[in-house]
Amino acid sequence: MERILATYRIGAPESESRARAEALAAEQSVEMPVAAIGDERVLRETVATVESIRAQAGCFEVTLGIAPATTGAEASQLANMLFGNCSLQPEVELVGVEFPAGYEKAFPGPRFGVEGIRAETGVHGRALTCTALKPQGSTVEHLAKLAHAFALAGIDVIKDDHGIADQAPHPFAERVPAVQEAIDAANRETGGRTLYAPTLSGGSAALAAQARLARGHGVRMALVAPMLVGLPAFVELRASLGVPLMAHPAFAGAVRIAPPVLLGTLFRMLGADATIFPNHGGRFSFSRETCLAIAGNARAPWNGMKPALPVPAGGMTVERVGEMLSGYGADTMLLIGGGLLSAKERLLDRSREFVRAVRTA
Amino acid sequence: MERILATYRIGAPESESRARAEALAAEQSVEMPVAAIGDERVLRETVATVESIRAQAGCFEVTLGIAPATTGAEASQLANMLFGNCSLQPEVELVGVEFPAGYEKAFPGPRFGVEGIRAETGVHGRALTCTALKPQGSTVEHLAKLAHAFALAGIDVIKDDHGIADQAPHPFAERVPAVQEAIDAANRETGGRTLYAPTLSGGSAALAAQARLARGHGVRMALVAPMLVGLPAFVELRASLGVPLMAHPAFAGAVRIAPPVLLGTLFRMLGADATIFPNHGGRFSFSRETCLAIAGNARAPWNGMKPALPVPAGGMTVERVGEMLSGYGADTMLLIGGGLLSAKERLLDRSREFVRAVRTA
Repeated sequence: MERILATYRIGAPESESRARAEALAAEQSVEMPVAAIGDERVLRETVATVESIRAQAGCFEVTLGIAPATTGAEASQLANMLFGNCSLQPEVELVGVEFPAGYEKAFPGPRFGVEGIRAETGVHGRALTCTALKPQGSTVEHLAKLAHAFALAGIDVIKDDHGIADQAPHPFAERVPAVQEAIDAANRETGGRTLYAPTLSGGSAALAAQARLARGHGVRMALVAPMLVGLPAFVELRASLGVPLMAHPAFAGAVRIAPPVLLGTLFRMLGADATIFPNHGGRFSFSRETCLAIAGNARAPWNGMKPALPVPAGGMTVERVGEMLSGYGADTMLLIGGGLLSAKERLLDRSREFVRAVRTA
Repeated sequence: MERILATYRIGAPESESRARAEALAAEQSVEMPVAAIGDERVLRETVATVESIRAQAGCFEVTLGIAPATTGAEASQLANMLFGNCSLQPEVELVGVEFPAGYEKAFPGPRFGVEGIRAETGVHGRALTCTALKPQGSTVEHLAKLAHAFALAGIDVIKDDHGIADQAPHPFAERVPAVQEAIDAANRETGGRTLYAPTLSGGSAALAAQARLARGHGVRMALVAPMLVGLPAFVELRASLGVPLMAHPAFAGAVRIAPPVLLGTLFRMLGADATIFPNHGGRFSFSRETCLAIAGNARAPWNGMKPALPVPAGGMTVERVGEMLSGYGADTMLLIGGGLLSAKERLLDRSREFVRAVRTA
C-alpha cells in the first residue's frame, strides 16, 4: 500500500528544513537515530520518508510518507504515528493528511452519514436545525420541559449540552428517559420526528451502560466528544451503538492538529455521522476559511465513505441563518443553543423563528 | 466541598481581563449566557466563580472555582470541565490546578507508586534505569535479543518503544511472551529482577485482551499513553491491570495544558505509577524548570496519595546521568533509549556503563 501523506508546518528557520524534516521522519516512525538501524527491511518499510519540503513565510511545510503498517489499523496508534511525539514539539503542527486508497477499509467512516441522519429525521431538501439543553446543574424536569418546547417548535435535533454528562443534578439514567419522553410527547402532538442526542461519556463500562439505557428508551442519536472519551472508544461506539454519532470538539481544538484535519477528516473517518465545530464570527476564533474547510472535509468524496454532516455552532443567532446557509449549503445542521435560551419566556417563539428561518432560507 | 481552583493564562489585553474571566467561567461550566439562567441554585452551585485575576506581561492569569459536582467524579468529564471548550480558544492555556481535600477520593492516584515500583524491581536507595526496545518494524527475535542484552546489563525496566503497539511485524501476542521470556532468562542468569513494560494500546476490548495476555506471561509493568487510549480507559486500566502503569506523554504535549499539570498532577491522579516526560536539553524544548516542576508534582505530598516516579527521557545520554540525578534526586527513573542503541555492537557495554553510572552516582 502507498504511504499516508502527513503534512506538518514547522516554525523554524528554512536553513534547518532538511535536518528538521529528517528528524521528524525518524520521530514519527522509528524514534531512534536512523544511522543505528541495521535492518534493511526496517529502513525500507518502516522509517517515514520525507516526500517534500516547501518553504513558507517564516516556516516550512514538510510532507512525510508514513507507512500504513505502522498504524496497525487502530485509532490510538494512528494518532500516535500522525502526532504522538511531535505533539510535544510546540513548533510542529499537523496541517494535512491524505490516506492511500484502501486505508479506509480499516476505518470505514460514518455508519449513517448525511443521508442516514436525513432518513432518521425525515428532513430532505433543506438544512437541519439543532439546539442544546442547558445549563448543566438544572433539574431533570427543567431539561425535559426545555426539550418539549424545542420539539414543539420543530427543531430537528435536540442535544445535551456537552457539559451535561452523568452528574448528580441530572443522572443519565433519570435524565435520558425523561427528556426522550418529553420529546416523544411533542412529536405525537406535532407529527414531527425530533431526535434527542444525549451526551455519552466515561470509560468503556459507563459508555456501554449508557448506550444500552439510551437505546432501551428509544434514543436515536448520541453526542460524544472523541478527544474526551478517547479515539478508540469512539471507534468502538461507532461499531456498537447503532444510532448516528454526533462528535463534539471539546478537548480537541488545542492539539495543534489543524481543525479541518481533526474535526473534518479524522473524526469522519473514525465514524462521526455529524461533526460540531465553532462557527466563525461567534465566541471562538476559527476563520471562515477554516470552517468551510472543516465542512468540505466532512463531505468530500472519499472512495465511497459516507459524508458526515457539518454542524457549525458556538455563539450563533437566528439572524445569521441566511448567511450561514449560503456559506455551508443545505447538507448542514445549524446549532443554536444559548441564542435560543437567552429568549427566556419567549423561548418557544424564538425557536419557531429559527425553524422558520431555516425552512424558508 | 470547596471548588477546584483552575488557573488559566489568557493572551489578551488586560483591559479585557474581567470580561474574559467571566466569559471563561461561563464557558467552562454552564456554557450559556449567565443572565439567561433563572435557577438560583444553578447560579450558586454550578456556574464557575472567578476567584482572582492577575495581570502579567502581555497576558493575565485567571483562577476559576469549578464546582467538583460538575465533573461527576469521572475522568472525561473532569477534562471537559478543566479544558473542554476552552481548548478551542488558542489564547487560553491551563497552567495550574488545585483540587479540594477529599476530591482525590474519586481519583485515588497510583496503586503502586514509587515504593511499589521499588518493591517490584528490588531497587532501593538509588535511582532506577530504564531503556526502550526499538525500532518498530523489527522482528520479534531482534526485539527479544535486545531485551536480553539490556537485562543482562542490569537495566531495571525495559519498555517497548511507544511506537511498538500491535502491528504486523511484532504482534502483541507474539512479541510479549518472547520478550518476557528473554528477560526472564537473563534474570535467571544474573539473579536480577529486570521488568518488561510492553505498550498497551487500542480500544477497551484490545486493552483487556492485551492485559490478560501480558499477565498470563508474567509481565509486571505496562506502558500506556493516556491521551492516545483516552483518559477514562487509563483509569479503567488502573483499576483492572494489577501491575504498575507507566504513562507515556504521546499526543499529550500539545493540548496547551502546562506539562507539570497534565504529566505531573493529572496523570498521577488518574493512576500513573510512573510518568515519562521529555527531559530538558534533549530533542524536545521543555525547560529545566518545567521538568523539575513535573517531577515535583508527580511526587508532592497529597493527602496520602502515593507519589509517581518521574521518568525523564528523550535524547538522553550516559554522560548526563550525574547532572540529571543531581537535579531530580534518587526517586527518579532515567530512560535512555536511542543513546544505547546507537552503540550498535557495543550495546551491552554501553548499557553496563549506564547502569554503573546510575549505581555509582
